[in-house]
Amino acid sequence: MTEQQHFERAMRHGLELAANGPVTGGNPQVGCVLLAPDGSIVAEGWHRGAGTPHAEVDALSKVADARGLTAVVTLEPCNHTGRTGPCSEALIAAGVSRVVFAVSDPGRASGGGAERLRQAGVEVIAGVLADEAEAFLEKWLTATRRGTPWVTVKWASTLDGRAAAADGSSQWITGTASRQRVHEQRAESDAIVVGTGTVLADDPTLTARGDAGELLAHQPLPVVIGERGIPATAKLRDRPFVEAATRDLGAVLRDLYSRDVRRVYVEGGPTLASAFIAADLVDEYAVYLAPKLLGGPRLAITDLGVASIDDARELVLVSVESLGDDILITARPKE
Amino acid sequence: MTEQQHFERAMRHGLELAANGPVTGGNPQVGCVLLAPDGSIVAEGWHRGAGTPHAEVDALSKVADARGLTAVVTLEPCNHTGRTGPCSEALIAAGVSRVVFAVSDPGRASGGGAERLRQAGVEVIAGVLADEAEAFLEKWLTATRRGTPWVTVKWASTLDGRAAAADGSSQWITGTASRQRVHEQRAESDAIVVGTGTVLADDPTLTARGDAGELLAHQPLPVVIGERGIPATAKLRDRPFVEAATRDLGAVLRDLYSRDVRRVYVEGGPTLASAFIAADLVDEYAVYLAPKLLGGPRLAITDLGVASIDDARELVLVSVESLGDDILITARPKE
Repeated sequence: MTEQQHFERAMRHGLELAANGPVTGGNPQVGCVLLAPDGSIVAEGWHRGAGTPHAEVDALSKVADARGLTAVVTLEPCNHTGRTGPCSEALIAAGVSRVVFAVSDPGRASGGGAERLRQAGVEVIAGVLADEAEAFLEKWLTATRRGTPWVTVKWASTLDGRAAAADGSSQWITGTASRQRVHEQRAESDAIVVGTGTVLADDPTLTARGDAGELLAHQPLPVVIGERGIPATAKLRDRPFVEAATRDLGAVLRDLYSRDVRRVYVEGGPTLASAFIAADLVDEYAVYLAPKLLGGPRLAITDLGVASIDDARELVLVSVESLGDDILITARPKE
Repeated sequence: MTEQQHFERAMRHGLELAANGPVTGGNPQVGCVLLAPDGSIVAEGWHRGAGTPHAEVDALSKVADARGLTAVVTLEPCNHTGRTGPCSEALIAAGVSRVVFAVSDPGRASGGGAERLRQAGVEVIAGVLADEAEAFLEKWLTATRRGTPWVTVKWASTLDGRAAAADGSSQWITGTASRQRVHEQRAESDAIVVGTGTVLADDPTLTARGDAGELLAHQPLPVVIGERGIPATAKLRDRPFVEAATRDLGAVLRDLYSRDVRRVYVEGGPTLASAFIAADLVDEYAVYLAPKLLGGPRLAITDLGVASIDDARELVLVSVESLGDDILITARPKE
């Protein structure tokens, strides 16, 4: 096995380790593998979420002497003192002779670790399995590079695009398998965003729940956007939430980013979802289609400011799944 | 091999032969296999369309002496003198000793062949591979039992249920693969039905064409429903067409049935498609979904008279196919 093959094998294992960490939160999922000069694995570590040791420090904690080892890390080691110290310094102090990583850290505060390592005489090799690591961390990387969270807009409609019947009733358009998937998607998000209209109409709890109605381990932050007030008795008041009395969706996203929100799940209603689409703020669509027809005035998407067919918002389908009797279409804006 | 197994093998072959015949027209696709007493195949035939010999007569024409043979036919032999004589009489005259068939002929004029054969001393066995034959002839059988054509309602829309942009432009919502499939579905239909609104707005030719724009072998009958007149210059006037200046869709379907139409393909516009749905006249839906969003007022389906979610028209998905970038959803009303 060549040295490069040792690095790739270790990086692939590092990505598996990284996946043990939480998908939500301001910190990325990172894995680290320490290799002996012969390429054998000496120790491994991963990041378990904000406030806990980073992957490199976790791996270093498992060896008595790291001198001369190679650290293979899925993301460039950070150069930032937050709740924990900078990983670049920890690697230098431990005497690691070489650091191999996949993707550069785009964080304004945390980037620059590679440069710091090189200054200290540590050999640095970047870009090993970069595509795999890029795909694995896509949402976090996109959010961090841009300074606003990854935005998934979700809606559930009938085949003819209705989100409710003429009298406003909508429980339930989709079946239990779809509704359970929505809860899983909520649990994989840092924030759920709804408009005040949805709060006033449905009084949702905006929690992520399991099959039996139990709360899932991770609960997203509820965010209510709109200029109407939230009733004192609204169920979502049972937890901390964010109220954004504005129509400036970009400002809301920047504010959420500053609160460590990296993935938001926009659940509507139709006016808010349409506003996100019209403002070009959507990274991914999750469209749950039920095999039903309703007709009438209650549309899942209202107006997008599109005048002519040539101005249609074009999407690329990522996947089409069966969920019970329903279909889940995952799509993204066409580049 | 038992006698029953010989019959089933011959029936399966008969269904394959039947599929050689045209899918359109007032007559069903039928296949016939003549078996010797030892179960071996002596001759075969199928029906090539109205005015040509029926499957039984086609098979009988290939043997010098049919006495003592068993005729295995996918549909009960007809008992009706139309453009050709009754098959029951032809089988009796040829001296066939036994007739095996899959499905009874529901035709008011053509049914009763089994009874006539039994009266003449021919052994009759019904129901062999009945489920397969029923599925194979489903559209024709449904139409013939009911006395109105099988109705497929087709529309093409964006993921958010729009059939056009705000300015009315709709060319093209779907891609070439979808549009080609629409032409194939037209060619498999006896009639294409549109509303006068579509004729006035789009001036369609309502022809079934191939990839290169060439006319396909079978052209459906154009039918225009509505109380507004069709312009003297309308392109569809290049061929015979039916103008139905009425809102009574049931009467239109009964009239089309009397013209040997068994499969109609309703292409809209939205008002007409919605009227067919609201009147419970749809047997199958062909919904072409393009990965686009338009928003705005031009809906593929308008109003269905559904007040509450519990009254939603519930469908069963038959298939979900990828067609280029689009999705074709085939569905039927839930029983």
